[in-house]
Amino acid sequence: MKDVIYLDNNATTKVDPEVFEEMVPYFTENYGNASSIYEMAHTAHDAIEEAREKVKNLFGAKKSKEILFTASGSESANMAIRGVLKNCENKHIITTKVEHPCVLNTFKELEQEGYRADYIGVDENGELNIEELKSKVTSNTALVAIMAANNETGAIYPYEEAAEIVKSINGNTVFFVDATQAAGKIKLDVQNTKVDLMGISGHKFHAPKGIGALYIKEGTKISPIITGGHQEKGLRAGTENTPYIVGLGKAAELAVQYLEFEETKVKELRDKLEQGILEKVKCAKLNSRTKKRVPNTTNIGFQYIEGELILLHLDEAGICASSGSACTSGSLEPSHVLRAMKTPFTSLHGSIRFSLSRFTTEEEIDYAINTIPVIIKKLAEISPFQKELAQMLK
Amino acid sequence: MKDVIYLDNNATTKVDPEVFEEMVPYFTENYGNASSIYEMAHTAHDAIEEAREKVKNLFGAKKSKEILFTASGSESANMAIRGVLKNCENKHIITTKVEHPCVLNTFKELEQEGYRADYIGVDENGELNIEELKSKVTSNTALVAIMAANNETGAIYPYEEAAEIVKSINGNTVFFVDATQAAGKIKLDVQNTKVDLMGISGHKFHAPKGIGALYIKEGTKISPIITGGHQEKGLRAGTENTPYIVGLGKAAELAVQYLEFEETKVKELRDKLEQGILEKVKCAKLNSRTKKRVPNTTNIGFQYIEGELILLHLDEAGICASSGSACTSGSLEPSHVLRAMKTPFTSLHGSIRFSLSRFTTEEEIDYAINTIPVIIKKLAEISPFQKELAQMLK
Repeated sequence: MKDVIYLDNNATTKVDPEVFEEMVPYFTENYGNASSIYEMAHTAHDAIEEAREKVKNLFGAKKSKEILFTASGSESANMAIRGVLKNCENKHIITTKVEHPCVLNTFKELEQEGYRADYIGVDENGELNIEELKSKVTSNTALVAIMAANNETGAIYPYEEAAEIVKSINGNTVFFVDATQAAGKIKLDVQNTKVDLMGISGHKFHAPKGIGALYIKEGTKISPIITGGHQEKGLRAGTENTPYIVGLGKAAELAVQYLEFEETKVKELRDKLEQGILEKVKCAKLNSRTKKRVPNTTNIGFQYIEGELILLHLDEAGICASSGSACTSGSLEPSHVLRAMKTPFTSLHGSIRFSLSRFTTEEEIDYAINTIPVIIKKLAEISPFQKELAQMLK
Repeated sequence: MKDVIYLDNNATTKVDPEVFEEMVPYFTENYGNASSIYEMAHTAHDAIEEAREKVKNLFGAKKSKEILFTASGSESANMAIRGVLKNCENKHIITTKVEHPCVLNTFKELEQEGYRADYIGVDENGELNIEELKSKVTSNTALVAIMAANNETGAIYPYEEAAEIVKSINGNTVFFVDATQAAGKIKLDVQNTKVDLMGISGHKFHAPKGIGALYIKEGTKISPIITGGHQEKGLRAGTENTPYIVGLGKAAELAVQYLEFEETKVKELRDKLEQGILEKVKCAKLNSRTKKRVPNTTNIGFQYIEGELILLHLDEAGICASSGSACTSGSLEPSHVLRAMKTPFTSLHGSIRFSLSRFTTEEEIDYAINTIPVIIKKLAEISPFQKELAQMLK
């Protein structure tokens, strides 16, 4: 396989070699079932509890027993939402218009099952309408779900403030945060918030795909969505995935250590890429011009150019990037996030997300800055919007 | 870690080194999100579809699109049962008394949600009461769940015959088979049966823990239990776990190749172990004396001896075995399977399952045959049932 410039780390990340190394012994050597009672099983059990402690630290949670291991960020969100609602008589739920499909589509399903849902909007920079949230919470509100950071734009949402507001109106409303795109990018400190549940996904911060976690504040009423054996204190049936849990633990430990690096070095490279493109490409426009953004993400609209075409040409040049989320790719619908931001149609179809990681190098960014303008120039020449583009290039 | 004689392969298995090798490139090199649209993503996507083909062959299914990847056998069972019932108005469900907790406890939950459940019994050898099943199916029966082979005793159930019977009474009843303990041990040929759904778990046949599959016969009405992105044709949200899916594919391929080895070599060693123990230990009694057993499993009752004590002494001697399933270990309740078989209390508490794999060697079996009688003799000496044991040893 050819060398690639991987700028799609919000879709998934490479497993950190250190994470991989930690997992290896649990495949072919210490393979005991963590629920069995002999020594080899204790080894697995202890490794899982050590990982739980590390994941606890990533969340900034108080107790490791507040951490549940799942198989994905999507499962974490489903478990949080459905698991809580099973214990709740209230039928009103609130989320935002810009959530990941694992929350949005779950809400749509719940509407069909008889729940009433409100979807809070954002402004043109992607910032959350806190006043609208405030106006929607009632005594009948069972759950509020607000993401910590948006996967497409990187916009950071004030979930701590939102949780305070929601709880001040209805103390019984359960507050869930999908922190999938925040973990490893910005500090989490869940114990000092009013958040009840917070979900993450390992493969967004260099653990493998197929492992996630859910923080469940002590005392939160929640039921399993996968029933059977007594694993995870009866909250999730299925033999513990020891290698991936160990990997998630190591990735969480590294994520905490690299936080400063993300906020300095990764941000520096992201800013260099963003400014480089905006300077060199006249039809380029930054989506989500908020300062509250995770350090690794930029979303740029190339006006009057078709996004899929850009991605294909980027791929040919060895650059991986994306339009919308991987979970919705393949559909021709423009991004629901950009639509909620009322991004004008001129850049809606040509918006590209570039997302870096700690493995991104300056050479890669330089290559991208030199390559992307050439691609866009070529595509601009075949765009059906020649008049509008000429106007822009004046 | 000391060398262990691992005779607990029904709890979990070691990952086959060949399976491990196939997974490795998908962690740190071909790590693209299979739903993305660039080349690295296509590589992952193609690997997943190749694995689906191999898993299809293990099931003996007709089309690879009938295979859904899940994160465990428990998730497969939950998806099958809950996913089908969401599309069904009928409220009667049937299973057996000897299912794995992922089916039994899901049925118990469903009873609380308003379903009426019947639990079919077995005889003292663990054989299913087909007449009882026949008498329970009605026009209101939504789903029947019967396992292919029992995890504790290895007894094989006539699920093909059961499916024929159920369908002949009510053609709309959906038939689910938990084949977790059958896959890799006996041939599956689902396309030539009336079975609608069949679940398996990778870590029972040398794939890692944390990956499973569900066969869904084309045309079966089923809804996801984890909603969100469009992965797995909208039936299971969450980024595809490429390494484990690839591993499951390889493990399935090997399982098919090793079937004959299981039925000859593994069975030979299992029989040697079983006969060795029964000959040398006077208080030992075979549970489930049916000939229809998977080739790797034996369950032996050591009368008047405490099971947990046996396991601890086996562990000290480097032998891993179990009483009941790992999913229920830690509870002091005697096995629900042996109770359903009306196993007398004399051996109920001292029943041990030994389960072999293709990695089990003759030397290991010889060691076990020599070691176990010594342990049982020692424990018999401290048993409170001296009179009864003396009677037996006469």
